[in-house]
Amino acid sequence: MTPTAPPATTWPLGRTETLGADEIDRIDAWWRAANYLSIGQIYLLDNPLLREPLRVEHVKQRLLGHWGTTPGLNFLYAHLNRTIRERDLDTLFITGPGHGGPGMVANGFLDGTYSEIYSEIDQSDDGIRRMFRRFSFPGGIPSHASPDTPGSIHEGGELGYSLSHAYGAAFDNPGLLVACVIGDGEAETGPLATSWHSNKFVNPVQDGVVLPILHLNGYKIANPTVLARIPEHELLELMRGYGHEPYLVSGGFDGEDPREVHERFAAVLDVVLDRIATIKADAAAGTLSERPRWPMIILRTPKGWTCPKIIDGLEVEGTFRAHQVPLANARDTPEHLRILEDWMRSYRPDELFDASGAPRAEIRALAPEGDRRMSANPVANGGLLRTPLRLPDFRDYAVEVPAPGAVDGQATAVLGHWLADVIRMNPHNFRIFGPDETASNRLAPAVYAATAKQWNGEYHDNDVDLARAGRVMEMLSEHQCEGWLEGYLLTGRHGLFDCYEAFLHIVDSMFNQHAKWLEAAKGIPWRAPVASLNYLLSSHVWRQDHNGFSHQDPGFLDVAVNKSAEVVRVYLPFDANTLLSTYDHCLRSVDYVNVVVAGKQPAPQWLTMEEAVEHCTRGLGILPWAGTERDGEEPDVVLAAAGDVPTLEVLAAASILRERMPELAVRVVNVVDLMRLQSAGEHPHGLPDADFDAIFTTDKPVIFAYHGYPWMIHRLTYRRHGHHNIHARGFKERGTTTTPFDMVMLNDLDRYRLVMDVIDRVPGLAAKHAGLRQELEDARLRARDYTREVGDDLPEVRDWRWPD
Amino acid sequence: MTPTAPPATTWPLGRTETLGADEIDRIDAWWRAANYLSIGQIYLLDNPLLREPLRVEHVKQRLLGHWGTTPGLNFLYAHLNRTIRERDLDTLFITGPGHGGPGMVANGFLDGTYSEIYSEIDQSDDGIRRMFRRFSFPGGIPSHASPDTPGSIHEGGELGYSLSHAYGAAFDNPGLLVACVIGDGEAETGPLATSWHSNKFVNPVQDGVVLPILHLNGYKIANPTVLARIPEHELLELMRGYGHEPYLVSGGFDGEDPREVHERFAAVLDVVLDRIATIKADAAAGTLSERPRWPMIILRTPKGWTCPKIIDGLEVEGTFRAHQVPLANARDTPEHLRILEDWMRSYRPDELFDASGAPRAEIRALAPEGDRRMSANPVANGGLLRTPLRLPDFRDYAVEVPAPGAVDGQATAVLGHWLADVIRMNPHNFRIFGPDETASNRLAPAVYAATAKQWNGEYHDNDVDLARAGRVMEMLSEHQCEGWLEGYLLTGRHGLFDCYEAFLHIVDSMFNQHAKWLEAAKGIPWRAPVASLNYLLSSHVWRQDHNGFSHQDPGFLDVAVNKSAEVVRVYLPFDANTLLSTYDHCLRSVDYVNVVVAGKQPAPQWLTMEEAVEHCTRGLGILPWAGTERDGEEPDVVLAAAGDVPTLEVLAAASILRERMPELAVRVVNVVDLMRLQSAGEHPHGLPDADFDAIFTTDKPVIFAYHGYPWMIHRLTYRRHGHHNIHARGFKERGTTTTPFDMVMLNDLDRYRLVMDVIDRVPGLAAKHAGLRQELEDARLRARDYTREVGDDLPEVRDWRWPD
Repeated sequence: MTPTAPPATTWPLGRTETLGADEIDRIDAWWRAANYLSIGQIYLLDNPLLREPLRVEHVKQRLLGHWGTTPGLNFLYAHLNRTIRERDLDTLFITGPGHGGPGMVANGFLDGTYSEIYSEIDQSDDGIRRMFRRFSFPGGIPSHASPDTPGSIHEGGELGYSLSHAYGAAFDNPGLLVACVIGDGEAETGPLATSWHSNKFVNPVQDGVVLPILHLNGYKIANPTVLARIPEHELLELMRGYGHEPYLVSGGFDGEDPREVHERFAAVLDVVLDRIATIKADAAAGTLSERPRWPMIILRTPKGWTCPKIIDGLEVEGTFRAHQVPLANARDTPEHLRILEDWMRSYRPDELFDASGAPRAEIRALAPEGDRRMSANPVANGGLLRTPLRLPDFRDYAVEVPAPGAVDGQATAVLGHWLADVIRMNPHNFRIFGPDETASNRLAPAVYAATAKQWNGEYHDNDVDLARAGRVMEMLSEHQCEGWLEGYLLTGRHGLFDCYEAFLHIVDSMFNQHAKWLEAAKGIPWRAPVASLNYLLSSHVWRQDHNGFSHQDPGFLDVAVNKSAEVVRVYLPFDANTLLSTYDHCLRSVDYVNVVVAGKQPAPQWLTMEEAVEHCTRGLGILPWAGTERDGEEPDVVLAAAGDVPTLEVLAAASILRERMPELAVRVVNVVDLMRLQSAGEHPHGLPDADFDAIFTTDKPVIFAYHGYPWMIHRLTYRRHGHHNIHARGFKERGTTTTPFDMVMLNDLDRYRLVMDVIDRVPGLAAKHAGLRQELEDARLRARDYTREVGDDLPEVRDWRWPD
Repeated sequence: MTPTAPPATTWPLGRTETLGADEIDRIDAWWRAANYLSIGQIYLLDNPLLREPLRVEHVKQRLLGHWGTTPGLNFLYAHLNRTIRERDLDTLFITGPGHGGPGMVANGFLDGTYSEIYSEIDQSDDGIRRMFRRFSFPGGIPSHASPDTPGSIHEGGELGYSLSHAYGAAFDNPGLLVACVIGDGEAETGPLATSWHSNKFVNPVQDGVVLPILHLNGYKIANPTVLARIPEHELLELMRGYGHEPYLVSGGFDGEDPREVHERFAAVLDVVLDRIATIKADAAAGTLSERPRWPMIILRTPKGWTCPKIIDGLEVEGTFRAHQVPLANARDTPEHLRILEDWMRSYRPDELFDASGAPRAEIRALAPEGDRRMSANPVANGGLLRTPLRLPDFRDYAVEVPAPGAVDGQATAVLGHWLADVIRMNPHNFRIFGPDETASNRLAPAVYAATAKQWNGEYHDNDVDLARAGRVMEMLSEHQCEGWLEGYLLTGRHGLFDCYEAFLHIVDSMFNQHAKWLEAAKGIPWRAPVASLNYLLSSHVWRQDHNGFSHQDPGFLDVAVNKSAEVVRVYLPFDANTLLSTYDHCLRSVDYVNVVVAGKQPAPQWLTMEEAVEHCTRGLGILPWAGTERDGEEPDVVLAAAGDVPTLEVLAAASILRERMPELAVRVVNVVDLMRLQSAGEHPHGLPDADFDAIFTTDKPVIFAYHGYPWMIHRLTYRRHGHHNIHARGFKERGTTTTPFDMVMLNDLDRYRLVMDVIDRVPGLAAKHAGLRQELEDARLRARDYTREVGDDLPEVRDWRWPD
């Protein structure tokens, strides 16, 4: 029994002459060699080139890895090699399907890259043995195209992001072809399903070309795939509906000779590359007036193509049983061992490798040379290509702050002016990504004076701030924005992602994967550092009063802090100048994820630029003008804050204390760099214990007003001496549509509550200030009643300003 | 200037006779009334029906809410009303576009539902005034179709899930029509982009019908939408490619009379409903052999249709400026006030409401009656329809455990047998959802003996476990699975979501939205409780050794615990019998999110069913057979564990201690219900302090081996007396492709490390047991070296069993 072809298959053929037999030989030999090496990685510990009969002890005990997707990946790599040589194409290969690792390693080995990077994996029997051994093996490499795989910017561990990564790589790389293989399993994910629309954003002149190759092998772990089980006309309509010109090649079914599939595919690939060349030429000549219909390829082959047809009486090739390890245990019976050996020998290894174990010259000859090899393309080790941003001096954009709180400003709007100049000074390697929120987050209008949103959809007469090429990328998909930016960064460029705070949770898992990539990449000597992934979270939890409970969630910070301290940084600048200083730092950094939360609403400004720089350099510090402590004495209480709204409430509380309890020595502390709170042993930014104690004391009450969920403060400080004295306030999931001050009251983060906390926690105050405490309770009720009556905050609260 | 139509527009017309003028009158009047009431909610505090000239004090100070999407929603509601009456359709309305709240409230008011539920909002001037006032007002209601909106199961706060929710509602509701309005902004999200493929899963006989209505009004906050800016043929191809038969109605551009649009739309709606009726009849008759091409509608109208064309010299209607509040401040100038008044009077309120403020009888007559009103449909208050599951006695599925650890078992496989019978006993109101992992997570094969995966894509001869109708829903999109399940639960049914632990992060934000919905719904008296959302997280962090770092992430628990304690429950059963007991509890519960983590690999079984029930009822407890404490005395040290792998390591550590330090009094504690650790004041499951102290002591070292990130234990226990004695071990983001035991070693959660922790932390042991400590260090090195050599765990570790 052999896999059966789906009903009808059509594919346009673009040229009449076919490939010569010798060309097909060479492609087929590469393919067989890559397939052989892939199987070897999954199964063998020894006897790598089957110089002797296969014995049980040659086979791994635990068989890990996935064969199913591999022959398709190897097939595409071989064919792309030919066209790269013929056309001198600068090509990046992206492996969307999960567990494509063995194929990528095999191809990198065949084109020589792997041995150049890992000298112990030389092109010999011994090198191959070592390569096999380390695959999916403790101390070795995983089964994905992980950071230790040359030529990869896309691990494919979690599925769904290949095409977004591909477009991210293509932006501002006008000569680059990104061949992006999309698995039909991956194609079912939401992120992938919308990423096809990236073609409305890519610019045919200034950006590179993405060639999506949808690889339909029909099965996931235990199910058929959706796109393999719809009529062919629907599949083609879907691709046309996504704006592509689809080319379908189907082959390998019903026992078809792979050489025939090679011939057909090569012809289609030439047509497609000609088509791309024509579009690029038209675009360059300025004769392209509308968005082109970029070609894409659908390749339909049996799952696990060329593996045993039947094992233990069950069909394997072309079914879901070929997804993982077709032969789940080759050590249990002689029959299974023989099947494995026959399978491996079916690729005729003697024809593929010479006596020393090196791939034969005919095979090596298919590979392009030097950096044109897809595994060696420096774009896939983007740190090599990264040039630091040219940054205007952020001090020049400072808000004048004659005295703390004396003027109002909008932090993100101020940042927008600086970013506008960052864009002007870096016209080709910096972009802003966001799901329709760059304006809402107040980076506009400044940013749109410097650039536009890149848009290659249709235009209407009254469109504003849109252009065929621009530095701002907006599509209403956080997944798309995150994926584009990751691809852009990993290929050596810079950028930031601005988003509503609550909705960054949409890409929690993408952040996780990127953070893990960065952490793993740091341990790989040949990977050069890439620019940090910078988030700008505005429209944050405390100012989502108008949008209601569904928009109120500061929990992304908790997700971020779960990832390695080597990678994650969290900043909560509390005014415009601290935001400028913070972001300058972030755009200079490498290999981090910088999470920055900042306000967009008009609010009092606190620090001069000089003070802001000093404060941000320390990461946290005492605000001496706000407290009432006496020189050389410890305060009675510490009021600490992280975040703009919490700091405002702390300062308002401090002003009440100063007026009503002038005898109380109050220290006010602000934290911008959240990781300073953690112990030095746990985070590189962690403040030494002595410094922490000097600021927070070891035995005085600390009332800590925090932007997010309050237990974060306990988590970060639980090894500190004074930890049991810290009383943290923050968001405790009390929200609704209301006013800003009602939001802080609902969560007990308001100035009145903070003063009550001081009364309750500083020994001796409770009895003495019972009257004040009642006043504060009354003030809370008055504020709430006013809000419910008028629909706005009490003017005395809303318009409160620092009294000095 | 008026909005311009996109180039060409075609729509098929299915019947020749058109609607009578009186029918159009009635639809148009309803629409005007709903539009009027929507604007009133956004703008007015008083003078609701403009009985007097509009004055500044009648207008709200803070204008919140979104007009842009509303006229389209109101239009559709009016037209559906007509067809519901004519055809007696059981119809659920889902509002995908964000901020559609005012429209839903207005329609619910017009059909009478709103006043029935909220008696103070009666059909009078005063009632309308109160309705206006509470919209987007402190103490009032938000601008989404939140839980307090009758007729809603879909808030639309975070975008992207409308269509998944719609299909979830339709499953097992064969007579239900779900009219799902999808905003063209929402349509750009990944989850929405893949949810179109739901039509390959819905069964035309046993399930209801989803009618997707893609509402193209062209704009998001500050951008055009992608689907509104592609050629019409592409849009139609896209919908056909998704498997639908699209019907496009475009209208309201270039000043077109809305009555003409009503006429066209009504005709198309009739065609579409006829088409649906035909498909349903064919399906019922058994003459439908393939997946039908279900119709869908594209409605293209100007953004903010019928609002002022120009304000302050800028185009508003038909542009992004109509997205939110077209007239951002009506109180600032007399001109703006006049524009608002003219706008509102353009709907001719005098024709719409009678002298008492009630909608005129002609308008009310358009509404269906009783439960047929979309706002009153009990499906949208699914708790009313919920019947408890019939549950087989889980004790009958127990693993025989003659002694602790005496037998091996696979927890999820055992659960699978029970779930198979749950399916058999509840053939119409229970489903399992998962992204291709029901088999991988070992619920199969048992579950597939009882049912199949529901699949309405194409079939191949060799397909297994697939059927046109079945109780298991698998698509490789966690978003889709989550959305389907939420829709299914909110309409009164039961189910669970099984998923790889790491990849549940993909739906973090969906979980957040659902948890917020549940919490809000609990405070609304007329909302009946719905079945809990049950997760089964298997393939968990400790057994993703083979899949590598990208698959290793226990952080969903941290996301879950951030949400309200009223809603979230977390369980970590550590063997098959505790899993059975836990899941029985979960499937009986309502209005919770139950997160259950359980193992799928063969592992020792610890408790008899009787012990398991007792243990799970307490939620945590001492395992007396495992410790060496003496009756009536406090132990020297507590070894605590939560999770199957941590418990195994703790027990292995306990067995080492028992052998090597028989004099040490060791207590072993296992925690199944994680929330028991939290203080009683913080979580309803929180253990009283005295009970906590009795188990964990107040002053003895507690070595706590936890399944997830270790700081969770500190977070949950930081108010407990003995908190500073707790030393938590867990996943600390150290992972790779390796073996199970190497995973626990990498994270210092292994038995040897735990014994070393005991030596380090129990006073007096360090000096005495320096030799043992060194032995343990050596044992770790030996285990690591063996693993790297052989690729598997040391047999003495891998095959370790409890010695008793």
